[in-house]
Amino acid sequence: MNDLEEKNELDTRYEVLKIALQEQNLSDFRENFLELHIYEQGQFYESLTEKERAQMYSYLSPKELADMFDSLEEDEDALKEYLEEMRPSYAAAMLSAMYTDNAVDLLNLLGKKDTAKYLSLMSPEAAAEIKELLHYEDETAGAIMTTEYVSILANQSVGSAMRYLKKEAAVAETIYYIYVVNDQNQLVGVISLRDLIVNEDETFISEIMSERVISVHVGDDQFDVAQTFRDYDFLALPVTDYEDHLLGIVTVDDIIDVIDEEATSDYSGLAGVNVEEVSESPLKASTRRLPWLITLLFLGMATATLIAKYEVLVSEASILAVFISLITGTAGNAGTQSLAVAVRRLAISDDKEKSFIRVLISEILTGLITGAVTGITIFGIVAVWKGNPILGFVIGMAMMAAITVANLAGSLIPMLMDRLGFDPAVASGPFITTLSDLTSVLIYFNIAALFMSHFQ
Amino acid sequence: MNDLEEKNELDTRYEVLKIALQEQNLSDFRENFLELHIYEQGQFYESLTEKERAQMYSYLSPKELADMFDSLEEDEDALKEYLEEMRPSYAAAMLSAMYTDNAVDLLNLLGKKDTAKYLSLMSPEAAAEIKELLHYEDETAGAIMTTEYVSILANQSVGSAMRYLKKEAAVAETIYYIYVVNDQNQLVGVISLRDLIVNEDETFISEIMSERVISVHVGDDQFDVAQTFRDYDFLALPVTDYEDHLLGIVTVDDIIDVIDEEATSDYSGLAGVNVEEVSESPLKASTRRLPWLITLLFLGMATATLIAKYEVLVSEASILAVFISLITGTAGNAGTQSLAVAVRRLAISDDKEKSFIRVLISEILTGLITGAVTGITIFGIVAVWKGNPILGFVIGMAMMAAITVANLAGSLIPMLMDRLGFDPAVASGPFITTLSDLTSVLIYFNIAALFMSHFQ
Repeated sequence: MNDLEEKNELDTRYEVLKIALQEQNLSDFRENFLELHIYEQGQFYESLTEKERAQMYSYLSPKELADMFDSLEEDEDALKEYLEEMRPSYAAAMLSAMYTDNAVDLLNLLGKKDTAKYLSLMSPEAAAEIKELLHYEDETAGAIMTTEYVSILANQSVGSAMRYLKKEAAVAETIYYIYVVNDQNQLVGVISLRDLIVNEDETFISEIMSERVISVHVGDDQFDVAQTFRDYDFLALPVTDYEDHLLGIVTVDDIIDVIDEEATSDYSGLAGVNVEEVSESPLKASTRRLPWLITLLFLGMATATLIAKYEVLVSEASILAVFISLITGTAGNAGTQSLAVAVRRLAISDDKEKSFIRVLISEILTGLITGAVTGITIFGIVAVWKGNPILGFVIGMAMMAAITVANLAGSLIPMLMDRLGFDPAVASGPFITTLSDLTSVLIYFNIAALFMSHFQ
Repeated sequence: MNDLEEKNELDTRYEVLKIALQEQNLSDFRENFLELHIYEQGQFYESLTEKERAQMYSYLSPKELADMFDSLEEDEDALKEYLEEMRPSYAAAMLSAMYTDNAVDLLNLLGKKDTAKYLSLMSPEAAAEIKELLHYEDETAGAIMTTEYVSILANQSVGSAMRYLKKEAAVAETIYYIYVVNDQNQLVGVISLRDLIVNEDETFISEIMSERVISVHVGDDQFDVAQTFRDYDFLALPVTDYEDHLLGIVTVDDIIDVIDEEATSDYSGLAGVNVEEVSESPLKASTRRLPWLITLLFLGMATATLIAKYEVLVSEASILAVFISLITGTAGNAGTQSLAVAVRRLAISDDKEKSFIRVLISEILTGLITGAVTGITIFGIVAVWKGNPILGFVIGMAMMAAITVANLAGSLIPMLMDRLGFDPAVASGPFITTLSDLTSVLIYFNIAALFMSHFQ
C-alpha cells in the first residue's frame, strides 16, 4: 500500500464506524473500533459530534476508552469538555484505568474541586496512586513519570521473574526494563527483558543484573532527563528520591513530547511569540503577539528618542538617514545569529562556567571578523555609489562597531540570563534586534558627528 | 547518589581507566572499561590522546569497540580521524560488527575509495548488508533504517518464536517487536514481545499477531517517519518497499536524533545561521555567518536606495528620520512572529492545501488587529511627545500598514516555498525582516509625502 491508499483505507474505516454509530450497531462498532490503533481511535473520536461521543461512551468500557485517552493529544479545552460530558463515575473509572502519568496530566487541567470529585469516585488504591503524582512540580521528572513499572527482588530466579512479568504485562507501561530493588524499595539494579530471555530459567537475577543503574531524581528538570535519554538511548529511566527509593519510571514516548516542547520553546523565544497553538482565531493570535510587540515598541521609542537628539545632524546631512536602517538591520541580523548560537550552546553544554570567558572572546572575535568584512564591503559600495569615500568610511566603521556590539549582546545576554537562573531562550530575537538598534544608532551618529566636516 | 556524586564517581572511573592504560594493565583496563555503559565508554574514548586510543585498539576486540562506536556522536572530522588511525582490517572488522545503519553513517563520511577499501576487507555477507543500505538517499527512511530486526513466519507457535528470539537477541537492534512475513518476505503482521510473553507456548503466531501493521516506505522523508513515531508512540517501525517487502526497521533512538535535527534546522532558519556546530573557531564561525550577512546587506542596500529617493523629503522634515528604525523594527518583529507561526504550522499540518487561503486571511486579520493596536499606541505617544497629532497619524498609519504587510510576507513566503518544494524554514527570519524593511520604508515615506504639507 502507498501512503494515499493507506489514508483512504483509514478513511473508509472511519466511515464504517460512523455508519455503525448511526445505525446503533453496537457489535459492528466495537469490532471495527477495537481493531484500530489507539492513535487512530483518538483521531476518529476527535472527529465526532458531542452526540456521537455520548453514544461511544455507552458502547465502550471505561478501560477501553482509557487506552484511547492515553494517546490523545488534544488541546486543553477539548479534553476538559470530553471529561465533563461523561457521567462522573464513568470518567473516574476511565481515569483510574489510564496510565497514572496521563491521568494526572488530565486532572491537572481541571480545577481542584473537579479533581477532588473524580478522586472520591475512584477506588482508594487508584486515588492514592494519582494523588502521589499530583503534587510534583511541573516540568520535573516527577511530573512526567508513571508508576506502572515492574520491579523485582534480586534473589529471584529468571524463571520466577518471567512468571511475575507475565502477570504484570497487562498493566505495566513498559516491561522491557525490570528494576531490581532491595526490601526497602531502594533501586539496586536493572535488567532488560532481552537479558531475561537469553538466560536460563535457573539463573539468579543478582548474577546477571547490571548494578550500575542510570537513574534520574524526582526533582530533576525534564529537559535534563531528556538529555540523559539522548545520551544513553534508553527506552525508559527509573526515577528515585534522594535516598534511592524507586518512585516511578519515565518512558521514551513522554520524552519525545518533552524534546518537542524544548524545541518549541527555544524557537518561540527566538521569534518573540509562543508558537504552540497554531490554529487559533486572529483575535486570539493578536492577544498572544501584542504584548511583545508593544513592549518592543516602547524599547524602540528609546532608539527614536536617541535619533531625535541627532535631528540637527540629520537636517544638515540628510544622507545620514539613508543608512540608518541598513546599519541597524545588518547589526540586528548579526545579533540574531549570535543569539541563536549562544542559546543552542547553553542548551547542550555540560560545563557552562568554564566556557563563559572563552565564548565571549570567541564572539568578540567573530564580531570583529564579520564586522570588518561587512564594513569593508559597504565602504566599497558607498565610496563608488555616492562617490564619497569618507562617507563610506563612516558607514563602514559604524557597521563594524555595531556588528561587534550586537554579537556581544547576542551572546552575553542569554549567558547572563542563564547564570541568573532564567531560561536563556527568553532573551528573544526581537529583543536583541531592538536593543541592537539602539546601540547601532548611537555608534553610527557618534562616528558620523566626528567626521561630519569631512564628508559634506 | 545525587548528580554531583554520580559525576564524581564517573570521573573516578575514568581516572582508574587512564591509569590502567598508562600502566599497560590490560586486564584491569578491560574489566573496568566493559563495566561502563557504551555512552560512557564513548565519553572516555573521546577524552584520550591518539597514543592512548591506539593502545585501546590493542586491548579491545573489534566487536567490543563496535558497541561503543554505535553510540558515538562526535563530529565528522573526529570520526574520520578515529577510523584512519586504526589498522584497516581492524576498522573493517569493527564496521562489520556495528549495527548496519551506524556503520553506513560512518562510511558515508569517507570518500568512495576508503569505503571500497573497508568493504573489500569485510566478509562478503557483512559487505553486502552495508552496500544495500549505502545507496539510499539521505534523510529518507532507508537512510536511517537498520537491517538487524527479527522476522518470523505466521505458522509458527509462540514457543518456537521465543526460541528463535533467544538466538537472535544477541544481534538484533530491537527484539521488542517481531515482524511476521510470508514466504516472499512480505510484511503481513506484527507482534510485540509483550504479546509473546503473555500467551501460551502452543498458541500460533497467526492467531495473536496484529494484521494491521503501521509501516513506512523506504523512500519516505525522515521527518514524516518521525511524525508517525510521535503519533503512534512506537519503539520501532518496519520499513518496506512499494511491494510490501520488509527491508528494515527504524528504531526510536534514531528518531530522537531526527527530531533534534528537525528542530535545529527550523531554529537555524529563523536565525539565519546554521547552529549545528557550536564549538568552532571565530574564523570558521565567521565564514558560516558571513554569506547570509552579506546577502542581506545587498538586500538592505535596496532599502537604502529607496530612502535615498526620499532624501529631499527628509531634508525638508528631518523629524521623519527619527521614526524610520521604529517602523522598520516593529514591522520586522511582527513579520518574524508571523514567520515562526507559519513555519511551525507547515511542519505539523497534514492538510496544507486546504488551509492556504484560510491561513492567509487569518494572518491579514491578525496583522490588521496588531497593526491597529500598535498604530494607535504610537499615534498617542507621538501626538503627546511631539505635540503633533498629524505626524502621529502619519506614523500610526504607516505602522499599521507596515505590520500588516510584514505579517502577510511572513506567512506567505514560507507557504509559497513549501508549495514550490523548498524547505519553508529556509525563509529565514533575517530575510523576512530585511524584506519588511523595504516595504515599511516605502509605505512610510509615501504616507508621509501625502501629509507633508499638514504636519510641518
